Amino acid sequence: MTSYDTVRIDDLPVRDELRGKSPYGAPQLDVPVQLNTNENPYPLPEPLVARIAERVAEAARGLNRYPDRDAVELRTELAAYLTRTGKHRVGIENVWAANGSNEVLQQLLQTFGGPGRTAIGFEPSYSMHALIARGTGTGWISGPRNDDFTIDVAAARQAIAENTPDVVFITSPNNPTGTAVEADTVLALYEAAQAAGPSMVVVDEAYVEFSHRDSLLPLLEGRPNLVVSRTMSKAFGAAGLRLGYLAAHPAVVDAVQLVRLPYHLSAVTQATALAALEHTDTLLGYVEQLKVERDRLVTELRALGCEVTESDANFVQFGRFADTHAAWQRILDRGVLVRDNGVPGWLRVTAGTPEENDAFLDAVRELMKEQKR
Amino acid sequence: MTSYDTVRIDDLPVRDELRGKSPYGAPQLDVPVQLNTNENPYPLPEPLVARIAERVAEAARGLNRYPDRDAVELRTELAAYLTRTGKHRVGIENVWAANGSNEVLQQLLQTFGGPGRTAIGFEPSYSMHALIARGTGTGWISGPRNDDFTIDVAAARQAIAENTPDVVFITSPNNPTGTAVEADTVLALYEAAQAAGPSMVVVDEAYVEFSHRDSLLPLLEGRPNLVVSRTMSKAFGAAGLRLGYLAAHPAVVDAVQLVRLPYHLSAVTQATALAALEHTDTLLGYVEQLKVERDRLVTELRALGCEVTESDANFVQFGRFADTHAAWQRILDRGVLVRDNGVPGWLRVTAGTPEENDAFLDAVRELMKEQKR
Repeated sequence: MTSYDTVRIDDLPVRDELRGKSPYGAPQLDVPVQLNTNENPYPLPEPLVARIAERVAEAARGLNRYPDRDAVELRTELAAYLTRTGKHRVGIENVWAANGSNEVLQQLLQTFGGPGRTAIGFEPSYSMHALIARGTGTGWISGPRNDDFTIDVAAARQAIAENTPDVVFITSPNNPTGTAVEADTVLALYEAAQAAGPSMVVVDEAYVEFSHRDSLLPLLEGRPNLVVSRTMSKAFGAAGLRLGYLAAHPAVVDAVQLVRLPYHLSAVTQATALAALEHTDTLLGYVEQLKVERDRLVTELRALGCEVTESDANFVQFGRFADTHAAWQRILDRGVLVRDNGVPGWLRVTAGTPEENDAFLDAVRELMKEQKR
Repeated sequence: MTSYDTVRIDDLPVRDELRGKSPYGAPQLDVPVQLNTNENPYPLPEPLVARIAERVAEAARGLNRYPDRDAVELRTELAAYLTRTGKHRVGIENVWAANGSNEVLQQLLQTFGGPGRTAIGFEPSYSMHALIARGTGTGWISGPRNDDFTIDVAAARQAIAENTPDVVFITSPNNPTGTAVEADTVLALYEAAQAAGPSMVVVDEAYVEFSHRDSLLPLLEGRPNLVVSRTMSKAFGAAGLRLGYLAAHPAVVDAVQLVRLPYHLSAVTQATALAALEHTDTLLGYVEQLKVERDRLVTELRALGCEVTESDANFVQFGRFADTHAAWQRILDRGVLVRDNGVPGWLRVTAGTPEENDAFLDAVRELMKEQKR
């Protein structure tokens, strides 16, 4: 019998698969240059901060009432944004929003995955896909990639045919590698998933605004089992807001409402997101600056002798290091925090401000000198 | 083969148990007097609205960064509030917060329930308990109540012993009946749950600030498998904020972090909740007014010839009606929306402002006259 004071997680009646596990999350270290979580380095402009305060005050006057359960105004504006930037007409009936794309993905797995069902992702990819699968009781299948981190279409189709997963995740641009996925690849995997299932195919486009290529949104046309998920965390510089959304056939939007917690999206979240959407053009201006910086990181890292994976995101995967953790630590010793995502030999750096990127490149320059010695 | 335009939920590969289901939620009708969702009728005071705008603007300046994943400041203030009002010392290590108590309960079921496990509630009770169980793949067991809606302790203990549920829900005050649960009852059920399981016991105290009795928080002492869940939706007049929280042994707080989505609680939510907590005394003043109104509703409804269940919440269950839906409709015809929770013979009315309650009582007076004819 354990005494009250010494009770730990494993003394509680937790689910067996949680025993011995640790919570997800990058270390939050107090370091001058933080380039580890793919945040947008540009704070929101002051006129937008003022507009947020204004809209939130308005919402706060009605805060004693539940928020709009269907987030009608917000979904309308998100649909308008997607229509304007995605080369595909999206209406409110195609859009659903939640607290971060993580919650969107969780709702999708509760609806289309869950106990007795499986999901597949092509790894390395966004590790939350597997973790949300675990959290929703969905079995996880790790699919393959090519050595250059593109998806091996033949192998992926075979993995889908053999495993008949209920949900197929395709991350484009992929995290942590930065790799964009061709439309033809998505089509080939969708076809395989329909033959095997039919199964839902979820294209996670969290970083698509930073891509050299267009969004895959137009693929939704005629494909009711396809979902595109997005977020305001990166391009809108609003990681602290937790606003994710999806575009799909209206039936998908109806279906996730069977599992969403009622009134899941607070009135202050809706108000803040609406304010940010009013300032879309300014925020997309920052995206253009970050794309330039991202391209500069690729070029300069290569000039320093690093291998660099082609990036369509606001981050760059670079390597390769014989001792990945030691390389991470040496960069950290110089005041720059990057991410070790557990891909052997590779690290990931977020594109920051020009000054932050200079500090990072200086740190890598020193590291590469050491490695040659 | 269904054509794209006519695809509906059941044409998608949704989970079988979702087929034919409808989303949860009270009808949101445009009616002068809305007493159907247990909202607090008092808008936040203007000084608090101003403080929210101030704190949110501050948070918005850092919105490009992820929020504090561990919500340290907020949990500290929630702990202080519980310590001050709950007659039990609570520290930050005992507190966890999420987007509404629904998300708190969802995280608890992901941790301690889930596929292959079961939860029990004593019904009628908060219907989201069963729905969140379904959403997390947890089997649901409907336990019994006495005719006066108190928990039948012997029958409840027997149900626990026979079914060995992994999670036991006790709602106090109970929704929709308003019934408070005695500490002795909780202790008896906790004991039964430990003998049968050990299992987690979750006391849902969403409405406890309106009770004639103290919180059950002191029962946490020495009981690591006990959890008390709370919300800012009701007593803090902040249903639109979606801020729920729990108090429990620190190991429980550690355990839910294994399933929580990282950064689930936005920076604007944290800032708004902190502002509201600064104004606790004002908001608890409204609670005192609502308790007086609640007691008045009980007295006057009885004077009108209604049966009324003893209430410790900000709502009152009244009846009994041979045709519950017809009674609901007749009250609605007079511009007052109350809730039909599906308890045969009974309706539920939220305590509103004195004027709203007068309008409601007038409507019931007319209804009772008709019923006598």
